[in-house]
Amino acid sequence: MPKFDAAGLLSAVVQHAETGEVLMVAFMDEEALQATLDSGEAHFHSRSRGKLWKKGESSGHVLAVQEILVDCDQDALVLKALPAGPTCHTGARSCFYRRVDGKGLALLGDSE
Amino acid sequence: MPKFDAAGLLSAVVQHAETGEVLMVAFMDEEALQATLDSGEAHFHSRSRGKLWKKGESSGHVLAVQEILVDCDQDALVLKALPAGPTCHTGARSCFYRRVDGKGLALLGDSE
Repeated sequence: MPKFDAAGLLSAVVQHAETGEVLMVAFMDEEALQATLDSGEAHFHSRSRGKLWKKGESSGHVLAVQEILVDCDQDALVLKALPAGPTCHTGARSCFYRRVDGKGLALLGDSE
Repeated sequence: MPKFDAAGLLSAVVQHAETGEVLMVAFMDEEALQATLDSGEAHFHSRSRGKLWKKGESSGHVLAVQEILVDCDQDALVLKALPAGPTCHTGARSCFYRRVDGKGLALLGDSE
């Protein structure tokens, strides 16, 4: 089974089950992983609030988890999921809507 | 620019630039991000060894970074990269070669 770090956490990457787009990255503790396995919807551990957080609990934009992959050293997960709406709280489809370059941040598409 | 947490780290997800497969997840500190930006090859911070780690420094299986995306709260990165060989130290193409189910771990493909 997955291994949690000294803070009781592991990294969880949410990837769109159909398009492969990375939608968000968050942390899970054992409670969040169990809630995800039990419900089929992604739950995380909020480090800032120090508690269980169901993605979409207020927005309704839940993530229906299709498959969970674990890495070689068992401290990171990939959740393949189907999102019920935009994943980012900004309304963007993915939280990764900006690009880093040597000079700073650019919105995706600005330099394309 | 990206924000590092209390431990000086952020999460970095490596995604194959062509296939979209998630290859690995690791942590970066400011030194690792700068080394990645400067060299174009992925560098991370090893939490266990407490130092900069160039992916592929011994195996030769470096990751040529094509693009770096940052998330809404600027504490996670997606590195779109082209790998020079298997990314996982086990020889697997991706570190995510096993699936979690309610009962434990399964190798990908075993239950397909």
